[in-house]
Amino acid sequence: MGSVFGNNIKLSLFGESHGEAIGCVIDGFPYGINIDYDFIDSEMDRRRAKNAKLATARTESDKPEILSGILENKSTGMPIAAIIKNENKISGDYSNLKIMPRPSHSDYTAMLRYDGFNDIRGGGHFSGRLTAPLVFAGALAKLALKEKFDIEIAAHIKQIYNIKDKYPNNTFPTYEEFISNYNKELSVFDNEAMNKMISIIEEAKMNMDSVGGIITAAAFNVPAGFGDPFYSSIESRIAQSMFAVPAVKGIDFGLGFDFVNYKASECNDLYTIKNYNNIKKVETKTNNNGGILGGISNGMPIIVNTVIKPTPSISKEQLTLNIETKEEDTLIIKGRHDPCIAVRAVPVIEAALAIAILDLCIDMKGKLL
Amino acid sequence: MGSVFGNNIKLSLFGESHGEAIGCVIDGFPYGINIDYDFIDSEMDRRRAKNAKLATARTESDKPEILSGILENKSTGMPIAAIIKNENKISGDYSNLKIMPRPSHSDYTAMLRYDGFNDIRGGGHFSGRLTAPLVFAGALAKLALKEKFDIEIAAHIKQIYNIKDKYPNNTFPTYEEFISNYNKELSVFDNEAMNKMISIIEEAKMNMDSVGGIITAAAFNVPAGFGDPFYSSIESRIAQSMFAVPAVKGIDFGLGFDFVNYKASECNDLYTIKNYNNIKKVETKTNNNGGILGGISNGMPIIVNTVIKPTPSISKEQLTLNIETKEEDTLIIKGRHDPCIAVRAVPVIEAALAIAILDLCIDMKGKLL
Amino acid sequence: MGSVFGNNIKLSLFGESHGEAIGCVIDGFPYGINIDYDFIDSEMDRRRAKNAKLATARTESDKPEILSGILENKSTGMPIAAIIKNENKISGDYSNLKIMPRPSHSDYTAMLRYDGFNDIRGGGHFSGRLTAPLVFAGALAKLALKEKFDIEIAAHIKQIYNIKDKYPNNTFPTYEEFISNYNKELSVFDNEAMNKMISIIEEAKMNMDSVGGIITAAAFNVPAGFGDPFYSSIESRIAQSMFAVPAVKGIDFGLGFDFVNYKASECNDLYTIKNYNNIKKVETKTNNNGGILGGISNGMPIIVNTVIKPTPSISKEQLTLNIETKEEDTLIIKGRHDPCIAVRAVPVIEAALAIAILDLCIDMKGKLL
Amino acid sequence: MGSVFGNNIKLSLFGESHGEAIGCVIDGFPYGINIDYDFIDSEMDRRRAKNAKLATARTESDKPEILSGILENKSTGMPIAAIIKNENKISGDYSNLKIMPRPSHSDYTAMLRYDGFNDIRGGGHFSGRLTAPLVFAGALAKLALKEKFDIEIAAHIKQIYNIKDKYPNNTFPTYEEFISNYNKELSVFDNEAMNKMISIIEEAKMNMDSVGGIITAAAFNVPAGFGDPFYSSIESRIAQSMFAVPAVKGIDFGLGFDFVNYKASECNDLYTIKNYNNIKKVETKTNNNGGILGGISNGMPIIVNTVIKPTPSISKEQLTLNIETKEEDTLIIKGRHDPCIAVRAVPVIEAALAIAILDLCIDMKGKLL
Repeated sequence: MGSVFGNNIKLSLFGESHGEAIGCVIDGFPYGINIDYDFIDSEMDRRRAKNAKLATARTESDKPEILSGILENKSTGMPIAAIIKNENKISGDYSNLKIMPRPSHSDYTAMLRYDGFNDIRGGGHFSGRLTAPLVFAGALAKLALKEKFDIEIAAHIKQIYNIKDKYPNNTFPTYEEFISNYNKELSVFDNEAMNKMISIIEEAKMNMDSVGGIITAAAFNVPAGFGDPFYSSIESRIAQSMFAVPAVKGIDFGLGFDFVNYKASECNDLYTIKNYNNIKKVETKTNNNGGILGGISNGMPIIVNTVIKPTPSISKEQLTLNIETKEEDTLIIKGRHDPCIAVRAVPVIEAALAIAILDLCIDMKGKLL
Repeated sequence: MGSVFGNNIKLSLFGESHGEAIGCVIDGFPYGINIDYDFIDSEMDRRRAKNAKLATARTESDKPEILSGILENKSTGMPIAAIIKNENKISGDYSNLKIMPRPSHSDYTAMLRYDGFNDIRGGGHFSGRLTAPLVFAGALAKLALKEKFDIEIAAHIKQIYNIKDKYPNNTFPTYEEFISNYNKELSVFDNEAMNKMISIIEEAKMNMDSVGGIITAAAFNVPAGFGDPFYSSIESRIAQSMFAVPAVKGIDFGLGFDFVNYKASECNDLYTIKNYNNIKKVETKTNNNGGILGGISNGMPIIVNTVIKPTPSISKEQLTLNIETKEEDTLIIKGRHDPCIAVRAVPVIEAALAIAILDLCIDMKGKLL
Repeated sequence: MGSVFGNNIKLSLFGESHGEAIGCVIDGFPYGINIDYDFIDSEMDRRRAKNAKLATARTESDKPEILSGILENKSTGMPIAAIIKNENKISGDYSNLKIMPRPSHSDYTAMLRYDGFNDIRGGGHFSGRLTAPLVFAGALAKLALKEKFDIEIAAHIKQIYNIKDKYPNNTFPTYEEFISNYNKELSVFDNEAMNKMISIIEEAKMNMDSVGGIITAAAFNVPAGFGDPFYSSIESRIAQSMFAVPAVKGIDFGLGFDFVNYKASECNDLYTIKNYNNIKKVETKTNNNGGILGGISNGMPIIVNTVIKPTPSISKEQLTLNIETKEEDTLIIKGRHDPCIAVRAVPVIEAALAIAILDLCIDMKGKLL
Repeated sequence: MGSVFGNNIKLSLFGESHGEAIGCVIDGFPYGINIDYDFIDSEMDRRRAKNAKLATARTESDKPEILSGILENKSTGMPIAAIIKNENKISGDYSNLKIMPRPSHSDYTAMLRYDGFNDIRGGGHFSGRLTAPLVFAGALAKLALKEKFDIEIAAHIKQIYNIKDKYPNNTFPTYEEFISNYNKELSVFDNEAMNKMISIIEEAKMNMDSVGGIITAAAFNVPAGFGDPFYSSIESRIAQSMFAVPAVKGIDFGLGFDFVNYKASECNDLYTIKNYNNIKKVETKTNNNGGILGGISNGMPIIVNTVIKPTPSISKEQLTLNIETKEEDTLIIKGRHDPCIAVRAVPVIEAALAIAILDLCIDMKGKLL
């Protein structure tokens, strides 16, 4: 509950944007997993802003210090704790933040929830900075999923503002195709779409505005027959994890909301048999249900789409309320802001998916893997 | 977990479509709530098929027998258990169901998950019939929410296939406006849209096909400052509850996926002050965030949209796989089926929302209400 | 939480002593388990009063009706719901019960907790009657433990008042030796001790008084290496389950409180190797730690002792408080009462242990057993 | 689960004895609590060895660094994370520890549980060192309990080996009387008993042996009517928390196991009225039930006794098993060890109690305190 996730693993996130450190504890992480530090670094890197035109992150190293749970490069089965020190702490006055809450941000609601005692600087615990330990935890989850279950997680930007990505050959891509995008400027399949997205983001930035996006993530090789009905459906598990990501306002699976535009006879996923090296495997001809039926995996890729709203912190002048005078007042949010946080959210979404899938797998196969 | 929901309440659903009975236990339900049996009946009624042209429910009375937790028409604070006997049980042979799984249904995945031991008749525990105890639990949750918190829950059909509902005056309706639709053929605001929806459903039925829909539900009067960050965000809580409803494949809040089409300067919800009988209340001019910021309520209506996929059980001939022969085979699903389950899902979605909000409220205000 | 137990299974108890029915739902029970109805009946029987001199149970059949989760005598993996109808319901006036709370009972505390809305008749939800569904759930748990893990659960009365049972040959008995007591008047190894216990109970009954007892339960064949540190230690799990049994006021493992009388050099369990059909097995020479080290099983029998306080409902005249007059007043509790509830608690304690161990095993080995 | 405790708070413990750091995260800690650092220091101090003759702690400063959740000396409502760096880390070879497991320790069981991947040095995550962050969390819980509920927690050593403490005037002491012992050599009421205990511990130390003890803790001023039936009974909650403390092998409430020696007519707690400044308060004349009836508080002090087994690490030569040769071998545990860990466990037991009671209070009164 709160900042804690999972049934058999327990991921506990902590820290505030301008406090001493942010970090996480992962309780119940499987033992004996090889910890690939280069992979962890590369995941942390993907979350950082690469292109000054497209994102404006605080220039912090965001290097997790691992305090426990790993010995001789293998997980011990004990809680893994890691911290990331905050280098750019602000010690100045921030009382005005409480008086002039930023629109569409947590400033006002958190103030009510915590009776004004919460640390509001930079969004405090609600800051996007907390996605750094989330990506760290996700990287570990990916390592465990790969080593123990051969499950792989990837994502791409499906849409930025009105520009949509396209899949090569109109087929849902493989894991390898997904990760081949990771060294591009944006994790997008179609280069033409990518360039248009870049233009739109640059334009938003120039206008001191921001845009949102849709990210599609997939879990490959989840064995068929994993999951539960009702409240532990794979959808329920993933959704709980995804809505922890700041700015996510919607989630759907497979066709998702687009199901409304089809008749059953057009969108039902028909079963078939495929041959893989003379091993017959039951598959569906289409994957409109995103790999999940009745809350349980059917062996097809699990496909999940999430929408990231436009970063509410914009430099453009906005009206807000002065809490003290109870009158509307003009707000100018200083500092530099991401014109499209969806760009950097790709590995965060993957992390949220990986963590949910790892918890699912341990539910199914037990702690003695 | 599994068929159990909640942090401070625990709703446990049980039963199979063709077993002895279905039902639920609600642990932690508040004490002293007046149990309005007429209201419960009316909620159960809304879930049943009213119009033979639009839905084909089993003609069962679906009358919950309350076994515990209520004394002299008031909740005792003890677990409330209720059962609904299955009147139309099938005792015949059903072995063929295991051989020819229905496309886009849980038949195949549940068989793998439970190694074939699950009761597959009529979908078993995965049947839409399980939404009957869910609506019962939702009715109780609504009574508690109204009595203890003055919170009200309602929903309407936002879209069926390509037909969208419209709000009167283009404003998000009030609770009273929402419930004024409940005696219409469909819970839709715009009568013209409603009639078109009816035609589409009738056509689908005639073609032995089905269509899906989008339902928008709202929670009115949730106090500002309720909720938590991350995994207990209001979105995470509601999503976990909603994805328990069979056929739900997506959920979003406020503008939801439509956020992608806006710039922050166009969709940020600006604060303002409104006067209600000389009481000043902080509101937002728009409610694009669906009443939730940072996982916490801001006092505006909580707005949640869910998509219901077209009922996969259609009478139309479909290809499926014969599990024994490992070859494709033609499937004809006998019996009568709902051509648009979204029609009857309206009170189910409300129930899922009410239960999540009640759990939230007890988290915030405690068990000693 | 509340009346709900477990991490991977969720056992939900419901019902009141004089309501319609009592019962339980077991969510997450393993699929494919052979349901031996005779065994379930025999367990329910063990909980009933056999000897009118030693116990005074309501003469109800206490036959569980199974509503879901079992098909063709095998568990389906779906929630198992069962109800036991209350036959001896009282419909008379019970308002005086709220005015004159019985000493050492839940009457007064429950009234405060539920603001007087709880059903106080016969103890309501706090009644010992709720142990009937607990024994039912325990019987199922035992069947699953035996079939999937070869784990067996048994118990005996270790002490009644000042009379202590003795083990044959001063060795901790085997499972077979434990269950050989089940057809005796009391589940006691030493017949001399048993006869003395019977005398003491009869004397207590004659004096309109009651006595308590200590029950020792054991789980045999729990594999070494099951468990977790800290809050999911086997001790933490079992203790949470045991303290749900009414009248239990203490629990310890192995030597338990008696550890205080030893030095480490006298009570440390030294390791050794034993040969079983040429299979070498690590054991400890003594089992003072009751099969648990660091919260994790070591392969020896898990041994747990619980104390059951003297039944507080006695026929003897007692002083209590008249809540209305706020003055002390004389209370005479009518009806017949158990002079030693510990006698009938033996299968209840076993059930509480079996349920905790089953949840542990699923944690370790997963839901796909 | 695992190293995570609580329903509305989530305490997550992490770290290994010879790893980088140990620590904890407390999610859901109430906002606005004044953080008294001197009090925290004094609690940490109580856990450290004061008297070289009675205890042999690693001479580490054990100063928690707070990373999050506190701003301007007040809790923010966000997760509080704190770490304690390990100063005396061992980097040498420890492979022999895996071959020769210490009797009655977690060495062998943890090795099986984690397939040998766990950090075994100094007990790893199972080390008594982990009680340092537990005491830190307990200190915070005490501050919140005092400020928000006026609840106070204290403990004393009830027994060491065969020496029992005595209460002044044979009455259960007040909170003030309890804490007046805290500057004594041992937290014991009766000085004569204390001196005998000291002799016994010194003797055990001289003989390279160890002794155990019983600690009685109390929670004062818990309002009547807090708690739940069955699995969330106050006993179940406290027991789950207590059995997380290493070396605890038993727990009971009030008379506890001693109930077996009484008849109901002798031990039932009779109600009475007491006058406090003209305010009438319902009390019980005795408190044999330790303040809990039906799992719910009755307003009397909650009294809980726990037994701490003799420290299994003794310098005396012991037989153990050589895991490689599968033969018995002589073990000499090097280093200095506590001859009676119960001495330093007093504040740890208090912490475990405080954390359980805080979680209970938030359950009852909600997160918006």
